[in-house]
Amino acid sequence: MSQAAFRVPSNPTVAVVGATGAVGREIMTCLEKRSFPMARLRLLASARSSGQSLPFRQQAVVVETLDEQSLKDVDIALFSAGSGISKKFVPAAGSRTLMIDNSSAFRMGEKVPLVIPEINGSMAFTHSGIISNPNCTAIIMAMALWPLHCQVPIRRVFASTYQAASGAGAAAMEELRLSTKAHLAGQSFTPRVMPHPYAFNVFSHNDTVDPESGNNGEEIKAMQELRKIMGHPELRIGLTCVRVPVLRAHLVVTSVEFERPMKPEMAREILTGAPGVRIVDDRAGNHFPMPIEATGQDDVLAGRFRPDYGDPSGHTISMMLAGDQLLKGAALNAVQIAELVSGRG
Amino acid sequence: MSQAAFRVPSNPTVAVVGATGAVGREIMTCLEKRSFPMARLRLLASARSSGQSLPFRQQAVVVETLDEQSLKDVDIALFSAGSGISKKFVPAAGSRTLMIDNSSAFRMGEKVPLVIPEINGSMAFTHSGIISNPNCTAIIMAMALWPLHCQVPIRRVFASTYQAASGAGAAAMEELRLSTKAHLAGQSFTPRVMPHPYAFNVFSHNDTVDPESGNNGEEIKAMQELRKIMGHPELRIGLTCVRVPVLRAHLVVTSVEFERPMKPEMAREILTGAPGVRIVDDRAGNHFPMPIEATGQDDVLAGRFRPDYGDPSGHTISMMLAGDQLLKGAALNAVQIAELVSGRG
Repeated sequence: MSQAAFRVPSNPTVAVVGATGAVGREIMTCLEKRSFPMARLRLLASARSSGQSLPFRQQAVVVETLDEQSLKDVDIALFSAGSGISKKFVPAAGSRTLMIDNSSAFRMGEKVPLVIPEINGSMAFTHSGIISNPNCTAIIMAMALWPLHCQVPIRRVFASTYQAASGAGAAAMEELRLSTKAHLAGQSFTPRVMPHPYAFNVFSHNDTVDPESGNNGEEIKAMQELRKIMGHPELRIGLTCVRVPVLRAHLVVTSVEFERPMKPEMAREILTGAPGVRIVDDRAGNHFPMPIEATGQDDVLAGRFRPDYGDPSGHTISMMLAGDQLLKGAALNAVQIAELVSGRG
Repeated sequence: MSQAAFRVPSNPTVAVVGATGAVGREIMTCLEKRSFPMARLRLLASARSSGQSLPFRQQAVVVETLDEQSLKDVDIALFSAGSGISKKFVPAAGSRTLMIDNSSAFRMGEKVPLVIPEINGSMAFTHSGIISNPNCTAIIMAMALWPLHCQVPIRRVFASTYQAASGAGAAAMEELRLSTKAHLAGQSFTPRVMPHPYAFNVFSHNDTVDPESGNNGEEIKAMQELRKIMGHPELRIGLTCVRVPVLRAHLVVTSVEFERPMKPEMAREILTGAPGVRIVDDRAGNHFPMPIEATGQDDVLAGRFRPDYGDPSGHTISMMLAGDQLLKGAALNAVQIAELVSGRG
């Protein structure tokens, strides 16, 4: 981890670590869909999943067991197998491998860039072997907050999330489907992945709650990461993260207080031209960002711009954001970082 | 509507108007469960539903068609058939009938008490023939905000709701069930009740959006009614109402700013003794208010008390509330008002 940023070849050997997981599979789809140029793709996973073959560019790629030798000839390793695996296989100093890590293991490391290409892409060129991919909630919020902050500095953010099952992995998505099916059939179901019944229910995010602050892990990550990504360590954030019975896209309801007056029309105009953001804001049709319309989409949807009527000063606006947790919230952003460092950004 | 408050007999004749609807049926259950003393129960509905019989205290009560003569001998008429019906059948001046109205038709009327018995029960004795039952979101929020406000005045409220299907009636609950079943079977489903697909989706509340303010009808009602119920016309509220795929209990994530410093522990202590509120606040178990645990319960659940980290002044705390939309959010509160005016409160 001590080497300076090194060049990634323009035709790299790429590894997907955690290839059989929910994010790993989306990474493969993004690489294929975006015609990512590479010499070779290697799929790595635990011994339990090795031997399977997964389709990529009309070929079957066999999943190999991840071990100490796996990354020897790899230029870019896209990790999405949890913090433990990322920490265990962190590239050795002097290795040729750049790790683009979807876990939270290194995100707050002082020398680790935490990158959203549309926001702080230049940071990707100052890495020391690791670039972290931010938390999904942080990414979805930052995509809309950043362009606004560039025009009028943001002082405070209040947000409540409506988070999908996918953030807890493929097993949580399956648990949502199975428990809902059981509920509709009048059958009982014992949750195994989530701490609470998920069918037709909503609960405070399942990440561990810090006994002191009362914030859960998801909230802590998203707050810290937003400040780091936006280069705004003083940003005041009140965030509550909640799981809703939705499969794979998150919704965020947010109220944003600016240093100077901000009109909803101005916010809409700023975000209309913002990269990776699409406006969905139809009052007459009562049509605003929804998980179902964000699913499978690269863009973060933004809409329902209106004043926050709790702040008569005219400094605060409210809006709704929706983004695909598996795409821009994870796999797509990681692949965009890979494009950037290999000269395609 | 011009007569002064009149006495309701202690053994009244009671009518449930809209008896076959989601709220009407819960009103009957509440009357039975709480052994509400009455001379007679009459069930009234549209011609389409008349002739059905519904069970009440081990007897079958036949549903009659609501017409101009229906309320002649009725002391308390519990209306839950929409604003149009409430306006059409508003008791004539001098009539013996007290209307307890679950619709929004008269709630903001200057001479109409808007009553939550635990908060402003005395208002129920100054009616002029109509007492309005508040909006469900307003009730659930007020149950927790009021005891806090009595100790330390509230300056500002920020809230996002996670609202169940039941607020849109029995047909919406059925649409949620049917569309979810279709989704799981890979079949298409065309929404008829809701403006958007409801299965595994979340959307901004379906009530009409005011083109000027951008607030939807639910938000406007809840904000106005909270100010009226709490006798706090200056209360600043930023509220976003959202539908989630849950059957019958609402969740509210709220951040409350007080005139003076407020600690989460103090809020918890105040609400521990509050009538109609139950604390669910277990950080180690990650167990906080959930719709599934509020369903079928009379109490509003309150928990996840912590500072709002967006406000370093220590004046703002965050909490989660959950309440059964059909019980305390509608039927139970209406029956509690009936108990109050007939001397049983």
